[in-house]
Amino acid sequence: MSHYYRLVVSCPDRLGIVARVSNFIAGHGGSITEASQHSDLEGGRFFMRYEILADSVGMPPEALREAFAPIADEFEMTWALTDTRQRRRVVLMVSRETHCLVDLLYRWTAGELDCDIACVISNHEDMRGLVEWHGITYQHVPVKADDKATAFAEVQRLVDEAHADCVVLARYMQIMPPALCERFQGRMINIHHSFLPSFAGARPYHQAHQRGVKLIGATCHYVTEELDAGPIIEQDIHRVSHCHTPSDLVRFGRDVEKAVLARGLRWHLEDRVLIHGNKTVVFA
Amino acid sequence: MSHYYRLVVSCPDRLGIVARVSNFIAGHGGSITEASQHSDLEGGRFFMRYEILADSVGMPPEALREAFAPIADEFEMTWALTDTRQRRRVVLMVSRETHCLVDLLYRWTAGELDCDIACVISNHEDMRGLVEWHGITYQHVPVKADDKATAFAEVQRLVDEAHADCVVLARYMQIMPPALCERFQGRMINIHHSFLPSFAGARPYHQAHQRGVKLIGATCHYVTEELDAGPIIEQDIHRVSHCHTPSDLVRFGRDVEKAVLARGLRWHLEDRVLIHGNKTVVFA
Amino acid sequence: MSHYYRLVVSCPDRLGIVARVSNFIAGHGGSITEASQHSDLEGGRFFMRYEILADSVGMPPEALREAFAPIADEFEMTWALTDTRQRRRVVLMVSRETHCLVDLLYRWTAGELDCDIACVISNHEDMRGLVEWHGITYQHVPVKADDKATAFAEVQRLVDEAHADCVVLARYMQIMPPALCERFQGRMINIHHSFLPSFAGARPYHQAHQRGVKLIGATCHYVTEELDAGPIIEQDIHRVSHCHTPSDLVRFGRDVEKAVLARGLRWHLEDRVLIHGNKTVVFA
Amino acid sequence: MSHYYRLVVSCPDRLGIVARVSNFIAGHGGSITEASQHSDLEGGRFFMRYEILADSVGMPPEALREAFAPIADEFEMTWALTDTRQRRRVVLMVSRETHCLVDLLYRWTAGELDCDIACVISNHEDMRGLVEWHGITYQHVPVKADDKATAFAEVQRLVDEAHADCVVLARYMQIMPPALCERFQGRMINIHHSFLPSFAGARPYHQAHQRGVKLIGATCHYVTEELDAGPIIEQDIHRVSHCHTPSDLVRFGRDVEKAVLARGLRWHLEDRVLIHGNKTVVFA
Repeated sequence: MSHYYRLVVSCPDRLGIVARVSNFIAGHGGSITEASQHSDLEGGRFFMRYEILADSVGMPPEALREAFAPIADEFEMTWALTDTRQRRRVVLMVSRETHCLVDLLYRWTAGELDCDIACVISNHEDMRGLVEWHGITYQHVPVKADDKATAFAEVQRLVDEAHADCVVLARYMQIMPPALCERFQGRMINIHHSFLPSFAGARPYHQAHQRGVKLIGATCHYVTEELDAGPIIEQDIHRVSHCHTPSDLVRFGRDVEKAVLARGLRWHLEDRVLIHGNKTVVFA
Repeated sequence: MSHYYRLVVSCPDRLGIVARVSNFIAGHGGSITEASQHSDLEGGRFFMRYEILADSVGMPPEALREAFAPIADEFEMTWALTDTRQRRRVVLMVSRETHCLVDLLYRWTAGELDCDIACVISNHEDMRGLVEWHGITYQHVPVKADDKATAFAEVQRLVDEAHADCVVLARYMQIMPPALCERFQGRMINIHHSFLPSFAGARPYHQAHQRGVKLIGATCHYVTEELDAGPIIEQDIHRVSHCHTPSDLVRFGRDVEKAVLARGLRWHLEDRVLIHGNKTVVFA
Repeated sequence: MSHYYRLVVSCPDRLGIVARVSNFIAGHGGSITEASQHSDLEGGRFFMRYEILADSVGMPPEALREAFAPIADEFEMTWALTDTRQRRRVVLMVSRETHCLVDLLYRWTAGELDCDIACVISNHEDMRGLVEWHGITYQHVPVKADDKATAFAEVQRLVDEAHADCVVLARYMQIMPPALCERFQGRMINIHHSFLPSFAGARPYHQAHQRGVKLIGATCHYVTEELDAGPIIEQDIHRVSHCHTPSDLVRFGRDVEKAVLARGLRWHLEDRVLIHGNKTVVFA
Repeated sequence: MSHYYRLVVSCPDRLGIVARVSNFIAGHGGSITEASQHSDLEGGRFFMRYEILADSVGMPPEALREAFAPIADEFEMTWALTDTRQRRRVVLMVSRETHCLVDLLYRWTAGELDCDIACVISNHEDMRGLVEWHGITYQHVPVKADDKATAFAEVQRLVDEAHADCVVLARYMQIMPPALCERFQGRMINIHHSFLPSFAGARPYHQAHQRGVKLIGATCHYVTEELDAGPIIEQDIHRVSHCHTPSDLVRFGRDVEKAVLARGLRWHLEDRVLIHGNKTVVFA
């Protein structure tokens, strides 16, 4: 099966970037299967993502990276060149609401998520059976209200041990400590069960019901220290009416959350999400 | 052409309301063409709306109202019985953004809005031509930053003179004075250009662009004294991405605003919207 | 926990139906928690569904049915009175595409589908592990191209043995024999992977890709003898573009199929779907 | 105000196209503000669209075209280089249903459609007033059932006289003769009031109501000789239920038609739609 190199770049916008990069790729025989660019006219920043058939380039990724480095320097690029053969290692974290976990496990099994699932970490035992049935390690790390530090030290240890590239908070209902947020900056993904910035914080569906909105939503975003305020990757909504109780909202919300998190994670794993300050460029 | 009586009721929920009301209607030969009920289980309140073929009832609306009054008293109903032959008188108010006005005028011409348009009031002269082309009176009431009171006294006079049943703020960019809000409580409809409660206040599309949301929206709501906080009638959204500038958001937003305001107003005119505290029951 | 009686009626439209039925319910002390009506003005037919708190009625469902029968006769009703304590027995059938099955199992576990799953029947062995992990019987009934009759005799036997009230074709890729269609008329639900009536028959996503449509869809419908032509319960769509290959369409389609089938089945189990010729009334 | 050159290319896919073209643009100092590419892997065809700040290139479009021609030849490109200062001349055609016309006139006035409207042609007199109020010429060309040839000769004459670049059938309910379809291939846009390929031909909303679908739609497509079968540019849908009569479907449909046609036309005018056999690549 074919594999691909993905070149992802962000840099100050100026003349000739595309020419220089595409010359470089063509010069190495690279066959481009997908190309995306974006110029942020306000901020004067340029973003690009190229997907290149690996076999068309006669060299391993390390060599290609080395060859590209001078161009990257010249244009002051923030960049990465990834090889789809090197699958990301993802740690999933979950509490009692399991719809996102079940959904991600199905998609992973079906080949929709190109990654290894290093382990599932939960503050509850509930999902051990199903997770292990999928052949995945389950780590139970209880979180005590009066000693969260111990729990998060253990989480950190497990994440390290797992060599995680990415952490997914699939309805993990504990607030991550700043150190972990910092360490996984741009690599820790959360699903929030509201259409942010509406109803940040706790019990958003009850807040939404209280306000009488006609649409509820969910938001997939990168985690930052400030709660529910990180760069948004994806959002979606579901229509509701006066007929619906808070528990109907919760039920509809589950479907939106699953879909939004799955899209966000897939895009992240495919290097389609570029962070730009507190916003994202998504080459979906 | 057939006309209809509409009986709209809200009352404390208890046994036998539907039986009593439907007996009453059947007893007068009333042929029901549409019926809706809602029990708010939390608040213990009951809502209903019946559409009755007027010709099937052998009496004018006044007589039917008189006959119904004892039942209404017994069940402590807030209620109204309207006759579709008595068209509501609507005053449209608009500033510089004219998409909602143009849209409402088209729908009114096409027979989608069952009302008379008493007049259009604007703080600008721009739309006089198009409005008068439709045979509708145009009232220019300039609003001076240092003397809004005079302007709103004139607005009030015009609204009175027009015998308005309903005022529509079709992107009227002035804050209505409390007295007018109070007087048209439940009969003054605004379109806000965001998915409330996100981005209340000024320049919501710029706020949305700043936050990097992936969906923008619009909200049609009844006006209350508290800005952008009244009961929501309808909302909808449009997908956006990193490609889109604030002016793209404004452009997409126009389409959402038009659609949401038109649906909200139509439902209001058809007596489909029942206010319930700071929320609405919409029998759409 | 509260249980409910559901009274579902369709009959020729005439004066006084609602009055008569609501009197009957009120006369037995019945507390109505949800009520829906629809008059089909073209066909002159009336549909209604009442949800009644069982404890408010001082009698078992059999007695209530007996008491209601004379009214039903008088108005020539097609009707049913169900008790939510008597859970439907559902048989799920599946072939190689398992997303709908996995989704329904999750929803069932989460309490979104109020039914017993009598068994899963498949023409493949693949899903035995997951199904049995859920504590559900798995029946493997291979279908040989040159002897389908034997297979369907076995299917019929298993369905009988299971006392199935409802059969769900959750991407079961065999055409059901007329006798089974006939027997489960209005109780056999299929998910078709296109926005019917477009692209009936085989490989609809490839047909859609070939035609260059900008939206793909899925359709949940009751099975009738004529392939993909039965009464439609629910449909939904997903946006696609020139970027997407047929396999992307298949992937997007899985999400739409899951959602549409789950909604359709839930509504069916809640007695919200009334068949009207080749169409449905859905009190959702 | 800035203007732009747009380079739109389709050619057999092979190595180095992007490099060659972006080198060419950079070599002329061209500042790229938007770039899109698509490789059709099945058909082996490549599509690209570049938007270039005109002032950054030190030459008029004719000179740039001449300089580019050798590259175009070498890569066997179908291509165009347009200048946004040269506005397209659009002829709108309409019959009795006027919602699309009114909508396009508003958008044109609001600056959403970058074109000149050469004239409106109709087989009815109804819209003369509104069209002329916008300062646009109105041409009434009655179509007699027994002599369509005369009418279409006149349409052809008017279109020629108007030097039309593009013809929009904004609910023009006559079938265009093959000669006109041929002549405006890829430049004549129709709005069909169904979600094609469902319900091609006459009275699609009635067909949809008859079939009991739960979503209705509209399709914007290029006109070809075969009725309702040309390349699809855009589609969208609106949810309906058993409550809705055919005339409700018509009303909802108007909103979908307006939106879909406006998007399709805008994309066409911005050179975002590339025809690929009977499909389109839309760089929206």
